[in-house]
Amino acid sequence: MPVFEREEYLQRISKTKEKMSEAGIDLLLISHPANMNYLTGYDGWSFYVHQCVLVSLEQEEPVWLGRGMDANGARITSFLSEENILEYADDYVQSTVKHPMHFIADYIKEKGWDKGSIGVEMDQFFFTHRSYVELEASLPNARFVDANTLVNWVRLIKSNAEIEFMRRAGKIAVKVMDTARKVIAPGVRECDAAAAIAAAQYGGTEEHGGDYPAIVPLMMAGEATKTPHLTWTDKRYQQEEAVLLELCGAYKHYHAPIARTIYLGKNPPQLMLDTAKVVLEGLQDALNIIKSGVVVEEVEEAWRKSIAHSGIIKTSRIGYSIGVNYPPDWGEQTISVRPGDKTVLQPNMTIHLIPGIWFDDVGFEIDASIQITKNGFEHLYDYPLELFIKK
Amino acid sequence: MPVFEREEYLQRISKTKEKMSEAGIDLLLISHPANMNYLTGYDGWSFYVHQCVLVSLEQEEPVWLGRGMDANGARITSFLSEENILEYADDYVQSTVKHPMHFIADYIKEKGWDKGSIGVEMDQFFFTHRSYVELEASLPNARFVDANTLVNWVRLIKSNAEIEFMRRAGKIAVKVMDTARKVIAPGVRECDAAAAIAAAQYGGTEEHGGDYPAIVPLMMAGEATKTPHLTWTDKRYQQEEAVLLELCGAYKHYHAPIARTIYLGKNPPQLMLDTAKVVLEGLQDALNIIKSGVVVEEVEEAWRKSIAHSGIIKTSRIGYSIGVNYPPDWGEQTISVRPGDKTVLQPNMTIHLIPGIWFDDVGFEIDASIQITKNGFEHLYDYPLELFIKK
Repeated sequence: MPVFEREEYLQRISKTKEKMSEAGIDLLLISHPANMNYLTGYDGWSFYVHQCVLVSLEQEEPVWLGRGMDANGARITSFLSEENILEYADDYVQSTVKHPMHFIADYIKEKGWDKGSIGVEMDQFFFTHRSYVELEASLPNARFVDANTLVNWVRLIKSNAEIEFMRRAGKIAVKVMDTARKVIAPGVRECDAAAAIAAAQYGGTEEHGGDYPAIVPLMMAGEATKTPHLTWTDKRYQQEEAVLLELCGAYKHYHAPIARTIYLGKNPPQLMLDTAKVVLEGLQDALNIIKSGVVVEEVEEAWRKSIAHSGIIKTSRIGYSIGVNYPPDWGEQTISVRPGDKTVLQPNMTIHLIPGIWFDDVGFEIDASIQITKNGFEHLYDYPLELFIKK
Repeated sequence: MPVFEREEYLQRISKTKEKMSEAGIDLLLISHPANMNYLTGYDGWSFYVHQCVLVSLEQEEPVWLGRGMDANGARITSFLSEENILEYADDYVQSTVKHPMHFIADYIKEKGWDKGSIGVEMDQFFFTHRSYVELEASLPNARFVDANTLVNWVRLIKSNAEIEFMRRAGKIAVKVMDTARKVIAPGVRECDAAAAIAAAQYGGTEEHGGDYPAIVPLMMAGEATKTPHLTWTDKRYQQEEAVLLELCGAYKHYHAPIARTIYLGKNPPQLMLDTAKVVLEGLQDALNIIKSGVVVEEVEEAWRKSIAHSGIIKTSRIGYSIGVNYPPDWGEQTISVRPGDKTVLQPNMTIHLIPGIWFDDVGFEIDASIQITKNGFEHLYDYPLELFIKK
């Protein structure tokens, strides 16, 4: 059974079709797992083989096309009718002579959808260059259009049902960070802390079981605090070292990321204390201006002005839109909180603000996962905004 | 510090260059995270943005090019010298006007590598259609060649150091399956079982901490046993239902997958018992012929002949090569154990045999993760090959 009502999927498809019409797209071929899930409910770890969802302006329901062994998964998890679940034979998988796009192209021709314009996700990881080449060669009458983030932009404003899922994810996020703060201590192996964190993520709360987030726990300690995006080793935590934690709670693939910094010991370096103060003030100043109607780049500007008095210069974006997602990223690829992003904030957009610092001499992470409201915003979870010092 | 000796990376690079020469490739552009890791040691969860490793026939060391904030991660985890770690500015990330391939193309021109042939991974998920288009437009003097699984094929025969890592992964796999068998019981929520399994995966053994496998726990229960590739829900396990487990132990991104089936209750359906018997015999008959010199398709043939007396017909491949990997797949995309695969088995190839059955009326999973030896094979772990009935 899909996790939302059929009506919710139909609304999403209707919004997608509006954007297709605006872009002159007759048929949309979607390979991004989160976009496939968003439009149909399909939820399988099958995105290591080629698969897609087709949305035609001519037909109410989308069509799922995937590997034969995954068709029952589509029957179980999506809202699609039997005639809209199509399976290709296994010898298409990782073959050098056959390609799943041949099967998909045959279906498109059979439906007579090969004469119009076809939108594909040209810069998404799950649609390869060869996918494009095979599709183009198989459908000589079609005109291909880049629809790279078309569905991502439909996803930008969440329904109330989605917001509820993200609040459940937020409750899990609190449990996850509590677990991390409890277990991380000098002498403990990083991998054992990761184990406890993952258990908190997957287990979730008593009311709502957790899901796997699109990114595994990122937990840089000691020297590694000068970079984001590392995971864990089997080293033991040391006295007087910092630990950066970029974690998450997830509920049915909806995300509430949570990032904090722990210092293990009594003597945090002055540079870390100073950096934490500047970043926390900067984050607060950015949050203070957030409400419906504000332009995204103004949020970054508020942050930048706030930290201008300090020596800190941050050249990378300080946030992005979040929602439903699959590995490798919980970012939505729509809003990036940086100069030049002219998106106007609207109620039920959900943003992850993470002004992380990864300098050679100091690292610091803190974040806020928020829902935009008419007059301001609400946090997806309540958690202290501070540097944790664990003596 | 990279996890292998510099000498090991140089051997891998040398083998890669041999294959490049054979294929007439002067410069290889690698985006697959496992291939990047294999050639340089680089290990960051940064594969949600564009990045690559360049291997030139003209230069001993490869070059890592990635996002600015990940360069320190490359300095920490790879064996590369400082001059071979190049970082692009953050406004290339998910931009509609700039693309990281512009930065990469500029570097290729600067080095004078744009006049020869360039191999790219045309059907890998981390090299998009737009990556190709931007690269081609930026490098008009280059000739592009498909090098889709070139490095994957170099990875096929493992070094002794890699085999040792996979045996450590095997020890973790045993712990993971023991944990699953212990925790899964009627009344327990699937998500809580997943939590315990993930903790076993990440924590690893006392000697060797675990890593995140390239695939999260796949654990289909009840109706879901008619499909692979689903994860977990917050439903509670029922008395008299089957649970299919496709799990894994991982050590520094090297994998030892382990799949078993548990029946919860006293009355397993006769069809499940019969299926288990046929599949276990078929797996054993396939294993019996495995040794260096055997052709891969002969292994599948032995399986097929073994089960021919039964009603079971399996149209999907029964195995594939494994080793180092990152999400979304622990399969290597080289050997597929199916008709037509003419690869000759050689010592230190490592194969995951998984003749899974996912029919509407019965599901059954069992596997063997093995290392090919001169006269046969060795299991990566010792674990009973049977259907577990938990009364």
